[in-house]
Amino acid sequence: MSPARRLAGVKSSPVRDLLALTQRPEVISFAGGLPAPEMFDVEGWSDAFAKASDDRRNLQYGTTEGDPVLRALIAERMTRRGLPTSAQDLLVTTGSQQALTLVTTALVEPGDVVAVEEPTYLAALQCFQLAGARLVPVASDEHGMVPASLAEVLEKDRPTLVYAVPTYANPTGRTQPAARRQEIASLVAAHDVWLVEDDPYGELRYRGEPVPPLATYSDRVLYLGSLSKIGAPGLRLGWLRAPASVMPAAVIAKQAADLHTSTIDQAAAAVYLSNTDLDAHVTGLRAAYRERRDTMIEALPATVPPGTTWSDPDGGMFVWLRLPGEVDTAEVLRDALKHNVAFVPGAPFFAVRPDHATFRLSFTTNPPEDIREGMRRLREAFRDR
Amino acid sequence: MSPARRLAGVKSSPVRDLLALTQRPEVISFAGGLPAPEMFDVEGWSDAFAKASDDRRNLQYGTTEGDPVLRALIAERMTRRGLPTSAQDLLVTTGSQQALTLVTTALVEPGDVVAVEEPTYLAALQCFQLAGARLVPVASDEHGMVPASLAEVLEKDRPTLVYAVPTYANPTGRTQPAARRQEIASLVAAHDVWLVEDDPYGELRYRGEPVPPLATYSDRVLYLGSLSKIGAPGLRLGWLRAPASVMPAAVIAKQAADLHTSTIDQAAAAVYLSNTDLDAHVTGLRAAYRERRDTMIEALPATVPPGTTWSDPDGGMFVWLRLPGEVDTAEVLRDALKHNVAFVPGAPFFAVRPDHATFRLSFTTNPPEDIREGMRRLREAFRDR
Repeated sequence: MSPARRLAGVKSSPVRDLLALTQRPEVISFAGGLPAPEMFDVEGWSDAFAKASDDRRNLQYGTTEGDPVLRALIAERMTRRGLPTSAQDLLVTTGSQQALTLVTTALVEPGDVVAVEEPTYLAALQCFQLAGARLVPVASDEHGMVPASLAEVLEKDRPTLVYAVPTYANPTGRTQPAARRQEIASLVAAHDVWLVEDDPYGELRYRGEPVPPLATYSDRVLYLGSLSKIGAPGLRLGWLRAPASVMPAAVIAKQAADLHTSTIDQAAAAVYLSNTDLDAHVTGLRAAYRERRDTMIEALPATVPPGTTWSDPDGGMFVWLRLPGEVDTAEVLRDALKHNVAFVPGAPFFAVRPDHATFRLSFTTNPPEDIREGMRRLREAFRDR
Repeated sequence: MSPARRLAGVKSSPVRDLLALTQRPEVISFAGGLPAPEMFDVEGWSDAFAKASDDRRNLQYGTTEGDPVLRALIAERMTRRGLPTSAQDLLVTTGSQQALTLVTTALVEPGDVVAVEEPTYLAALQCFQLAGARLVPVASDEHGMVPASLAEVLEKDRPTLVYAVPTYANPTGRTQPAARRQEIASLVAAHDVWLVEDDPYGELRYRGEPVPPLATYSDRVLYLGSLSKIGAPGLRLGWLRAPASVMPAAVIAKQAADLHTSTIDQAAAAVYLSNTDLDAHVTGLRAAYRERRDTMIEALPATVPPGTTWSDPDGGMFVWLRLPGEVDTAEVLRDALKHNVAFVPGAPFFAVRPDHATFRLSFTTNPPEDIREGMRRLREAFRDR
C-alpha cells in the first residue's frame, strides 16, 4: 500500500479535530485530554526558563540522547517510584508520543502485527497504522488487558509488539492489578516479543496504592514516560526507558526524527526538577483532580440515560461510558455541541471492532463548577434526543 | 528487510559521533556544523522566553500545525525573501530535520527510489535509508546537481522524491545558479515527482546576489526552512512549506511524530521575531562568518598537500576538499586528532560511491584566531604523514 493510500486510511485524530470545534469559549469541553491550565506552575517554569535561557550553551545543538542532567534527574525519579533506572537507560524524547514513534520505527516493519488493547489510545493506533502494521485487538475487561486473550493473540498472530496503557488507561481509565501485570510480563517474555508500557498518567492516583510499572516485571518492556501530565505538556518532554539491545536503534531513529529534543526545554526541565518539589506539586494535582473526578462521577447517574455504564477510575483523566441500545455517540456529540458541551465519541479508540455506543469524558480540564454545569448541559442534550 | 537489520545498516551519524570525540576542550573542531555560540543573541532570546513563559497558555498543548502567530511571521519573512507564502502553507516542525522525516513518512514507501545529490547531507541519507528507500545518486559539479544527470535518473529510476540542498550545500558549499534551478524545476514538474529543497543556510550569504529558492520555480517543490542557523538551533524550530495536496498527510505524520512542536519555544520565537530585528542580526552573522570563511580559505594553500582541491563557497558553513591520490581521510582524521584538530571525513556523505579522499571543514564555529591555529595544527598533521 502506498503511503498516500495508507495516510488516507489514517484519519486525522478526531480528538484533535474536535479541539478546534470545541475551542469556542462558550463550550465546556470534556473532549481533549488536557491538564488543568490553572494548575500549571507558571512561576516555577518561568524561573526555570529564566535560568536556562541565560546560558548560551542552551541555545546550541545538544546530544541526541538528551541533556545528561535531565536524564539523571528522571532516572532518579523513576528509581524512587520503584523502577530502578540509570541515565543510560533513558532517551529524552519530544513528548512520549515521539518515544512511541521511535520504538515503532526501530522495531515494526510494514505488515508486522502489533497487538493492542481494545479500545486504546488513538494516536498510538495512528502511529502503528502509519508504519503499515496490522493491528490485532486484545480483549480488555475492568482490569485492562486480559491475559488469556493476549496469550491467544501471541500464539496465533505472532505480533512484533504489544502496546498497553496499564495504569489509568486512555480511554478507559482502567488499571491492571499487580498480579495481572506479572502474568502479562511472563507471557511477553515467554514469546520473546516487546511490550510498550505507555505511562503518562501513572502519578495521577486518587485512591488506593500505586501499582508497580509493568517494566518492573520484565526487561522485555519498553517504558514511555512523560512530563506532560505532571509538569506541562507544552514543553513536549517525554522519555523512553529501554534495554541496551534496543537503545542504539532508538537513538538512530531519534537522530533522523529531529536530531535531539529542544536543548532549552530540557535545560529548563532540569532546573525545574532540581529547584522545585515536584512531589508536592503532584500532591496538589491529585487533590484537585480527585475532586473533579468525584464531581463528574457523582453527576453521572442524573446525567446519562438509564442503562448507561461507566468506568470508575482510580486515577488519570478519563471516564469511559457506554450508552444502552443501538446509539452512535458521534450523533449524540452533535446534539451536545448545540448545548455547548463536548466529549469524544468512542469509536476511533477501537483498532478493529468499533463500539459506537461508547464515549470518553475527560474530568481534569475543567474546575468542579464547570463540570457540574457541563454535566447539566449534557443531561439536556440527552433529554432532547 | 527487518527494521533491526535496516538500522544495523544505517550507521549512527559520524558527525554526531565525532562531536563526542572532539568535545575535549583542547581540540579545535572543524567537524560539526555548529553555529558560533558567541554570536547567539542570548539577551534577545532570554527576553523572549521571559515573555513566553509568563503566559500559562504556552505551557498547554498546542495545535499540530503550529503557533498561528509564528506561522504568520515565518510566512511574512519567506514572502519578503521572494517566495510568496501564507501561514496555511506552513507546518512548524521540530527542526527542519523533522520536516524531512515527515515528508519521507508521507511520501516514501520501502523500496521506493529517492534521488540525491552525490555527496549530500548525511542525516538526509539516514532518514531515507531508515524509510527503506533505495538511494540513487545524481551527479553534481561546482554548480550543484547536474540537470542532465537528474534527467537520466528521472527517466531510468523513476524516483518518488528528489532531495537537494541547492544553496550553500552541505557538505560541498555549492550553490545552484538561477538558470539551473529553473531547469531542475522543469524536469521535476515534467516527471510529476516531488523535490525537497532543504534550505537551512540560504540567508548566510557572504558575497554575490541571493538566488531565488528552487520553490519559486515549481509547486512540485517541498521547501524546508529553519531557525537553527539564523536564530538558535537549541530551540529545534523548522518548517515545511508544502502545497495543499501534501499538507494533510504531513500533518497526520506530525501528529504521530510528536503531536506538535514545543508550545513555549514557538511562542518565544514568535516574540523574538516580533521584537527583534532579525535582519540586522543576520547581517552581523554574515560579517562574522565571511571573515571566518576568508580566514580558512586563505590558510588552505599552506595547510593542505599540493594537489588538494577545494570548494570556494559563497555562503553557508562548509568548505569541501579532496586530497590528491589514494588517501582515506578517516586515517588523516586520526592523525589530526593527535594534533588536537578535527574535521569530518567525506565518505559518509556519499549515498552510493564514497570518495574516501574527500573531507569537510566547517568554518562558522570557531573565531578567526582559532581557525588560524587549527589550520596550523592541520598542516602539522599532514606533514607528519
